[in-house]
Amino acid sequence: MALLHPNRLFSPNSVTRGIARELYQTVKDLPIISPHGHTDPAWFALNENFPNPAELIIKPDHYVFRMLYSQGIDLTQLGIGADVEPQAVWKLFADHYYLFRGTPSRMWLDFIFEQAFGLDVALTPDTAEHYYQHINTLLNQDSFKPRALFERFNIELLATTESPLDNLAHHKTIMDSDWNGRVITAFRPDNVVDPEQPKFAASIQTLGQITGEDTSNYAGYLNALRNRRAFFKAHGATSTDHGHPTALTADLAPDLAEKLFAGALKSELTPQQAELFRAQMLTEMALMSLDDGLVMQLHPGCHRNHNSAVLERFGRDKGADLPVQTEYVAALKPLLNKLGNHPDFNIIVFTLDETSYSRELAPLAGHYPALKLGPAWWFHDSPEGMRRYREQVTETAGFYNTVGFNDDTRAFLSIPARHDVARRMDCNFLAGWVADHRLQLNEAAELAIDLSYKLAKKAYKL
Amino acid sequence: MALLHPNRLFSPNSVTRGIARELYQTVKDLPIISPHGHTDPAWFALNENFPNPAELIIKPDHYVFRMLYSQGIDLTQLGIGADVEPQAVWKLFADHYYLFRGTPSRMWLDFIFEQAFGLDVALTPDTAEHYYQHINTLLNQDSFKPRALFERFNIELLATTESPLDNLAHHKTIMDSDWNGRVITAFRPDNVVDPEQPKFAASIQTLGQITGEDTSNYAGYLNALRNRRAFFKAHGATSTDHGHPTALTADLAPDLAEKLFAGALKSELTPQQAELFRAQMLTEMALMSLDDGLVMQLHPGCHRNHNSAVLERFGRDKGADLPVQTEYVAALKPLLNKLGNHPDFNIIVFTLDETSYSRELAPLAGHYPALKLGPAWWFHDSPEGMRRYREQVTETAGFYNTVGFNDDTRAFLSIPARHDVARRMDCNFLAGWVADHRLQLNEAAELAIDLSYKLAKKAYKL
Amino acid sequence: MALLHPNRLFSPNSVTRGIARELYQTVKDLPIISPHGHTDPAWFALNENFPNPAELIIKPDHYVFRMLYSQGIDLTQLGIGADVEPQAVWKLFADHYYLFRGTPSRMWLDFIFEQAFGLDVALTPDTAEHYYQHINTLLNQDSFKPRALFERFNIELLATTESPLDNLAHHKTIMDSDWNGRVITAFRPDNVVDPEQPKFAASIQTLGQITGEDTSNYAGYLNALRNRRAFFKAHGATSTDHGHPTALTADLAPDLAEKLFAGALKSELTPQQAELFRAQMLTEMALMSLDDGLVMQLHPGCHRNHNSAVLERFGRDKGADLPVQTEYVAALKPLLNKLGNHPDFNIIVFTLDETSYSRELAPLAGHYPALKLGPAWWFHDSPEGMRRYREQVTETAGFYNTVGFNDDTRAFLSIPARHDVARRMDCNFLAGWVADHRLQLNEAAELAIDLSYKLAKKAYKL
Repeated sequence: MALLHPNRLFSPNSVTRGIARELYQTVKDLPIISPHGHTDPAWFALNENFPNPAELIIKPDHYVFRMLYSQGIDLTQLGIGADVEPQAVWKLFADHYYLFRGTPSRMWLDFIFEQAFGLDVALTPDTAEHYYQHINTLLNQDSFKPRALFERFNIELLATTESPLDNLAHHKTIMDSDWNGRVITAFRPDNVVDPEQPKFAASIQTLGQITGEDTSNYAGYLNALRNRRAFFKAHGATSTDHGHPTALTADLAPDLAEKLFAGALKSELTPQQAELFRAQMLTEMALMSLDDGLVMQLHPGCHRNHNSAVLERFGRDKGADLPVQTEYVAALKPLLNKLGNHPDFNIIVFTLDETSYSRELAPLAGHYPALKLGPAWWFHDSPEGMRRYREQVTETAGFYNTVGFNDDTRAFLSIPARHDVARRMDCNFLAGWVADHRLQLNEAAELAIDLSYKLAKKAYKL
Repeated sequence: MALLHPNRLFSPNSVTRGIARELYQTVKDLPIISPHGHTDPAWFALNENFPNPAELIIKPDHYVFRMLYSQGIDLTQLGIGADVEPQAVWKLFADHYYLFRGTPSRMWLDFIFEQAFGLDVALTPDTAEHYYQHINTLLNQDSFKPRALFERFNIELLATTESPLDNLAHHKTIMDSDWNGRVITAFRPDNVVDPEQPKFAASIQTLGQITGEDTSNYAGYLNALRNRRAFFKAHGATSTDHGHPTALTADLAPDLAEKLFAGALKSELTPQQAELFRAQMLTEMALMSLDDGLVMQLHPGCHRNHNSAVLERFGRDKGADLPVQTEYVAALKPLLNKLGNHPDFNIIVFTLDETSYSRELAPLAGHYPALKLGPAWWFHDSPEGMRRYREQVTETAGFYNTVGFNDDTRAFLSIPARHDVARRMDCNFLAGWVADHRLQLNEAAELAIDLSYKLAKKAYKL
Repeated sequence: MALLHPNRLFSPNSVTRGIARELYQTVKDLPIISPHGHTDPAWFALNENFPNPAELIIKPDHYVFRMLYSQGIDLTQLGIGADVEPQAVWKLFADHYYLFRGTPSRMWLDFIFEQAFGLDVALTPDTAEHYYQHINTLLNQDSFKPRALFERFNIELLATTESPLDNLAHHKTIMDSDWNGRVITAFRPDNVVDPEQPKFAASIQTLGQITGEDTSNYAGYLNALRNRRAFFKAHGATSTDHGHPTALTADLAPDLAEKLFAGALKSELTPQQAELFRAQMLTEMALMSLDDGLVMQLHPGCHRNHNSAVLERFGRDKGADLPVQTEYVAALKPLLNKLGNHPDFNIIVFTLDETSYSRELAPLAGHYPALKLGPAWWFHDSPEGMRRYREQVTETAGFYNTVGFNDDTRAFLSIPARHDVARRMDCNFLAGWVADHRLQLNEAAELAIDLSYKLAKKAYKL
């Protein structure tokens, strides 16, 4: 039995399904543009074999281990913060694979199992050992090294995300190599613009050392950031990425910004002042975007590390980040009033709060020339999440104020799976609107290619 | 090729589609009741030919030019705040018509092109000139004058919206003419009840001059409002309309209301006080409704003129109004506790925040005898918006606590198109519930007529 | 004509419908687990005939009379707070039965009419008298006594809800009787943990008298609660239930909690302090759950008794309760940080704010081992509400972090109707995902039984 049905995610209505299939045929083999994600550039710089199935598929994927954790499996049993036989981890995973029924993880994993590893039986407690051995054997082969997989996956461009303090050595290695794969960085300055990040003052000091700027004052600090943006741009970056708690922006008088910065260095800001400083930094970043042309991405609305015991025992990014309600209309006004009409400014806004799609974000994207709406993100980059996104966004913002798909993943193997889900969902969505005569078939055909490929290239200047 | 498919917006499922078609046959030719909108009464008073396609179709329609603006087309290029050849505006519009794919504007426009102007090729850059000439020629004919179109559109009743300071001269002209078209006004007092509106104090002074009341004190001010409501009622009005930032209502002691009014006249209110004054005025309006029987409409939740540069260059209503989160349960309590159980009070509440449908508004409408729920409004009067409205409202409020459709438009030609979309969506919705046996066919047939025609007449006392 | 179509609530798509029917066949006759509801235990203790159709079907069902009230029918006309002939009440209900079109009440009522009473004509003004006589005659028979109906309905377990001050005499009668029906209580301490409830201090005094604890101090008060929980457990309780205005929890220092308690007894708390005390009590209840194993249920987000005139004339629970926006991520953090990782703690969280499904609750349930997500509740336990629940919850939380269905009803006769709707909707939902190949049929078959039966038993330790 195949794990994947060729018509998966297509409407059971035969008219819609027929159109969806037709559209999908034209996009399924398009190259993958992955303009936003969190894979490790070392993989492509060093091109070493991946260690084993558990290390590759379970441990880096918080979608996977958060579900297991929610059902009482301790992270240590999965080899997180503990030394466990990878076979044992894999068996535990297989025993609980039924928990993923109906989740996108299940669909991505089955795609990986079938498409990347050629498996054709379902993962169950009984097949766990077969799976482990089969995958493990393949992982040792040259054709399963990162660069070979990158090529097999038909990736045209892959962006990673680095801190301004990163030396981008791996990216340099890739650029200097004779390999043609395009792996670029993106500038993610959270740790040097958010006074509430751990070790903020130390990071600013390091930033000064790296750039030769005097980061003890605001002007030098801004210069240092400009300097690092240029460095990132030289390593391929076409975008910046900002993961703020809220979407708040500010347009403060210079002396107030300077005063907040001084307070930030001394860890003296109240939470409200820290928020205001972050808000101001979004506007500063936007102003720098005008000069260097980097496209700005804003990812607000996540309560990070909610589970304090898990944070203490296992560190950050352990599946305990939680979406919160996020306001955009008032929050973005200072920034948009300053730069929202500027033809050279580009900001892509994301949300974890789906209520903002039809109420705030589609109306904003449908008015401001500078603002485009990022795709369904994180918890919502799933079939139902993608469907809600198109249904709630399109009528006000159209298709052309959106920017194609982001996989946003640390799980390298899942990239083709995620893009396949996105392409199928978009084709099925378009097919539904052709079937009830809201779109002509020729328009849908053009849109399918735009949504799968062209819009991402254009929005991210790739 | 026809622009419009006869089965558009009907489910591709053949069972549902068959039922939807059957229901639609019974409502498609019912007269149009348009109880809330913003067309210009001068059109029907003077009955002059419309100037040209760009002036008629593009410039007054913020749905149209906001989309073009969002993709980098300056408003001046569209002849807004600038003198541009209408043919050039039309060509620019045609060049970018693809942007409207999937939006309700596209569906309304195609309806206008085919049904009003008999066009049967798609609007593209290539057909732009043909379109312009064809439409322009027709617009010069007698059969395309406002009254002729009103009749051709089968409009039984059209309500416009005027300020209390308006002399309703056009409505008087219409009433005194031998034309039988029913074009009535609605009382929209925002500029004389909202202290934050520009020129508030001057408006209150004018209100006093018009009515002969001493509007320098609260009692005289209320009398003046009563007087103008009577004047509007004499010109056909059956409703009032209130476009407040929030849904807040208040039931203040008279001396506090009076004090706030005095402060408002002197522009001395804080934003909170201005909000409280508006809140009190909703209750005052409701009390006057008890006496004169005008149905109250509340349209809260819009952040107006968000783009300050656009406001400064081009003025209000330029596509930069944005929905915001809106709370109803606590906000309406003072008003509903005073009048919500009164058999002679009628309030129709609208929202731009779809999250309130199932959570707040359907439960309110499903309990308070005075409160009915207005239809999906503005950004949400689209196929998907209407579907969400019925899905999220009906199970708690039923169909009979809703009030039929409002087109709410300035774009006269789009009125039949919008009502057609609403009738199709309601028929398709009902058909879906017949197809899965939640409704009997005979019930759906009765409901189709209620939703298309009867409920609006009843709710607005027409 | 049958009132109920055998395929009701199944998709009109023939593929999906076929699968849904197949799944439904396997679950339709499973016993009913009703772990949360508000039926009267006296019915099962005394086993007397129900009085008459109006008294049984209309008066206790706020879903029914709130709709009638919203359309201008005074509650006194329905015999609420007034003495009216039950035939007259029934006739008024029949005259307005069309108002319920499209509501779940209509579906439940038709189920009762056909399945419980064998009626096969629709309820209309013309059949009202026939209905009344037919139902009334049956209600006098032995086979329509509460215990007989309980058995006919195939109820395996029915939980009621009682205050800690209740002596559970009816439950004791049932336990001591030779009847095998399992009717258990649930511990609902709102009136003794919420300082804003009427007669709070008196209730605490009574609590002390019942338990022999000195409830004038905090330690004694907590002991008294522990004591009553044990008493409830001895009468079958496996859960507690908490109906708070918000989801706020707190983890206060003991002396602060004690001080708040002292203030509560003297009615001296500000609203903020009362909220904080309730928040603390959730954590205290959770700590007691660790000891006694009772599963905790949290039902926040309802503005109770919104209509003050109705409250004054007719008392509580008269259809004027309204959902409000509800925040979970920050609110639950104190409790979850204390106990959310504990293997012996179980909390089931509900919402009336559907926006929290995908944004907050599915992510919380998909991470914390202690937290499961309760089903669509109250206003949302309807076909569309259930559909939105599964669509918005499943992709992040999976199926196994949910707990099956709750009917939550006072309307005993509606219990099988409500479970039937839930089973049909779940089967149809699963069928849709089989039809588009997101699930295998064998997985869906297992899930159908889990969602209909097994998950509720497991989550509530039944």
